[in-house]
Order: sequence, then structure tokens, then C-alpha cells
Amino acid sequence: MEIAFYGDSFIDINDKVVPIDERGHQFGDGVYEYVKVYNGTPFLLDEHLERLEKSALNILLQLPYSRQEIKDFIQEGLRRSGLQNSDIYIQVTRGISPRNHLFPTNVPAQFAMTIRSGKVVPNEQRKQGISVMILEDERWANCFIKSLNLLPNLLAKQKAFEHGHGEAILSRDGYITEGSSSNVFAVKDGVLYTTPATNRILHGITRAAVIECASKLNIPFKEYDMSEDFLRHADEVFITSTSVEVLPVSKVESITLPDERPITTALAQAYSELYATNEAHA
Amino acid sequence: MEIAFYGDSFIDINDKVVPIDERGHQFGDGVYEYVKVYNGTPFLLDEHLERLEKSALNILLQLPYSRQEIKDFIQEGLRRSGLQNSDIYIQVTRGISPRNHLFPTNVPAQFAMTIRSGKVVPNEQRKQGISVMILEDERWANCFIKSLNLLPNLLAKQKAFEHGHGEAILSRDGYITEGSSSNVFAVKDGVLYTTPATNRILHGITRAAVIECASKLNIPFKEYDMSEDFLRHADEVFITSTSVEVLPVSKVESITLPDERPITTALAQAYSELYATNEAHA
Repeated sequence: MEIAFYGDSFIDINDKVVPIDERGHQFGDGVYEYVKVYNGTPFLLDEHLERLEKSALNILLQLPYSRQEIKDFIQEGLRRSGLQNSDIYIQVTRGISPRNHLFPTNVPAQFAMTIRSGKVVPNEQRKQGISVMILEDERWANCFIKSLNLLPNLLAKQKAFEHGHGEAILSRDGYITEGSSSNVFAVKDGVLYTTPATNRILHGITRAAVIECASKLNIPFKEYDMSEDFLRHADEVFITSTSVEVLPVSKVESITLPDERPITTALAQAYSELYATNEAHA
Repeated sequence: MEIAFYGDSFIDINDKVVPIDERGHQFGDGVYEYVKVYNGTPFLLDEHLERLEKSALNILLQLPYSRQEIKDFIQEGLRRSGLQNSDIYIQVTRGISPRNHLFPTNVPAQFAMTIRSGKVVPNEQRKQGISVMILEDERWANCFIKSLNLLPNLLAKQKAFEHGHGEAILSRDGYITEGSSSNVFAVKDGVLYTTPATNRILHGITRAAVIECASKLNIPFKEYDMSEDFLRHADEVFITSTSVEVLPVSKVESITLPDERPITTALAQAYSELYATNEAHA
């Protein structure tokens, strides 16, 4: 069963709980995380909550709950949902106050959470890979903050979708930054590449886990500013996110990439073994 | 009395009407306007609603109501509020749907409005002018869209405030774009300057009205990319917005500008005459 939490109570996911003057609603003044639950256990939860804390710090937002309290709400939510494989969405905003650009004083941050059945990428798509479109990265300067200001991401994703692609790959000043909701990797001559974790991209939890898998598998790896053409002429390309895990890219716009993807396949396998043994780490 | 409207009904401004899965709340996926009401009549309402339509078009959002319907809601809201001088805030989001970057299909946009007593800049501050701080413009590429993605604006305004300033003036690649919630004008050697209305700035309604006032007063005017130093060494600087109208700047960081502000004063006067005769135009 789907379930949600707002403020300090569990609610029905469709309950109307937010007033117009909530700063998430009016300004996107908040941060969020998305956590996947495998076999009843949230995967890499500490990593996600640590990033939530960092995002909050970078927008000068004080989280209303400690990490342990959030973990307790998640546990209670999972229990109430009865779901074994689910997607947890958490967002925290700068609270409820008459609209004003300046931060409100003595107003508590608002915590919201939804827990839903885990979305799964269809096996066929995972095998075939997706096609991607390269679009100008029009976002702000601090994309390492996982903020609620996602309009440019939505517009890019939607545009790619309407052109028949599964993801928009963003490019700033001619170099690939990341996908609209994923990080991007490429393989060339046996070496694995991904965009450096600067302020321009989200420091993906899945991205980090995949880099660790590559290290364990002795796959040579480099953080590298990939040009658009580097991506078009790569031997393999894949995207990563909590939601899609490791997902092969079969086409970069009109250019079809090679069918064989030995490194992508090895990394997808290694990542799935990580979360399959999730419970053991919890 | 303060009043609000959400979806299709008038509500109490503090009513909880928005579910967690509203795209304004989760993505800042929407656009807004802010209209000032003088003597019972919304000032430059058609200009604001036209801009709302343009903003919506640019994010591929279909407004749920026609311009006339929105005007009718505003009239009814003003009647219910009983306020003669008020601030109307309108926002439209891409509706309510389980969280997904892709646009939902067959989901109506959500219209929200609040009407509150008009905020007035204290006379003393209007006479003295405000101090401003120049900060890096970290926003996205399409600031001409009046979207709900306002986090960088909030962070800049708050930083300026915490340093004792009344507004943050944003600078991109060394050139002034606009304030965190205002447009910026400067006067040098009798000529009025402001940043060109490209995609990098909001095309302010007050900005346009002030340019018209300058034309009527035969003040030479140029759209011009002002360097930070141009602003620091200007004879006069002022900001404009629906909310602050024409507000003099007395200090650019540590640099105090001249006390005499003949052109700012003339334009502030001309603008106030415009809205004083508002009813006649309505």
C-alpha cells in the first residue's frame, strides 16, 4: 500500500496537507532524496541521508529531524506500507510562512515523504538500452545540490521524450554534464569515463557505487570532461541513477552504439549483486 | 481580510489544499505573477496576465483558465477581501500527479491565488534609498520566464540581507543582469541605462512602465550591458519591481552614491502618477 508522511504524521498519499504559502510550493525552496528499497531494506540509506544533510547545509536549511529520526520514520513507513520493494521519496522545505524571498524566522522546516511500489525498468528495455538526445544544459550553477528547482530538468526530459528518446543528456559549453535525472558514463578502449563531480553535476549515489564496482573489477576509470563527440564515438555508454540503476544507452541521437557492452554488463551485474546482498549490510 | 483561491474555490489563506504530489511542491513546475492593487484596481493587470501566458507557453504549460476567467476570479477575490490596496499573488502549476519528471497527461493545471494587504515601502527608506550587494548570478539560462524555480534568487537576497543590504544585484560574466527580485537602472551623465531584455532577465512590467515614463519626460535612455564598475560609478542607481515600484539605491556595497537623484525622483513621481490615475485606465 502507498503511504505518505507530512510534517509529523503518516497520511494518505492523496491527502491535502500543504497550504499555498509553503515555500516548496511557491519557490521550490527545499531539497530531496529518492531511495530504493530492495527486499525490505532501503539501499545505501546513510549515503542518501548524508547527501540530504549536505544539500540542506548548502541552502542554509535546518533539517527538522535527526538522521536517526528520519530512519525511524522510514522504518515505520515501510512497516505500514507492507511493501518489500519500494521507492521512498523524501523532501524538506523551508516551511510555511507568508510569501517573502527572505527566509522566515522561527519557522520549522517541513518534512514530506511518500512510499510507493518500486518502479522497475522493463527487462527488455534494460537489455536493449535506451536512446538519448543531447540538449543544452540550461540549469543553474549549483547542480550538486539536490534541490526542488527541477524545471530545466523536466523540460529537457520532456523534450527528449517527445523526440522518442529515453533520456536527455545535458551539455554545457560543449561538454557533457549529466542526464536530466541520471549520471552518464562512457567506455572507450577499455577505460571507463564519467564527468568529474564538480558543482555542475549531482554527485550520484549510484554513480559512486558504480565507480566502486569498477575498482573491484579492475576496470580502468577516469573522471573526464567528455565532449559531445566523445560520447557519440564511445564503445559503450550508460546512465546511472537510484531509479534506473545501470542502464545501457544504445543510441546517441542518430548514432547507434556497438551491440556488445562487456563493461556495462559487468557493472550492471556487480551493482545488482550489491543490492541483492543489501540486507546483509543493513 | 486576506483571502485565497485554489483549484476552483475561494478558501482561507491558511487552508491545507495542496497534496504532496503537486508539481509546484515537488519540482517548482509552474509560473507566477504578482500584481499590485491601488484604490481597488489591479495595476497593469493585462500586462501581468499577458506575461503569465508567455511564461506558461515557454514551459509548455496550458493555463486552466482564460484571461477573462482569471480577471473574474480576481474581481471576486477583491470584493471578498474588501481591500482597497492589496497584493495579488497568482501561481499556476502543472497539476497533481504521482511524481515523474515527464509531464502528466490529462491532468489539469492548478491555479492558486492569494490576496493580502498591500505591502508599502516605508517613506523613510524610499527617501534614503537602499544599499545593495553585487553577487554572482547563478541562475539558469531562461530568467525571462517567471517560474517557481526561485531558490538562487532566495539565496542571493538572503545573503545580501545578512550583510546588511536591501537587495542583491546579480552579475553574470562581469555584467549586471538584475536584482534578486527587481530590475536595475543606472543614470550616468544624464542618460538612463538598464540591462537589455534578453533571456537572462525578467522583462519587468514596472521596468517597461518606467522606460515609458522616461520617454514621456524626454530622458535619454539606452539598454546597455552595465559592468559592475559602471554601477559603482553611476550618478544614480535605482531598482524597480511591482512591489517596490521605483526605489533609489544609496550605496553599492561600500561605495556611497551622490545624494542628489533628479532623474530617479522624476521617474518615481511619474510612476506614482501612473498608478494614482489607475482607476481611469481600468
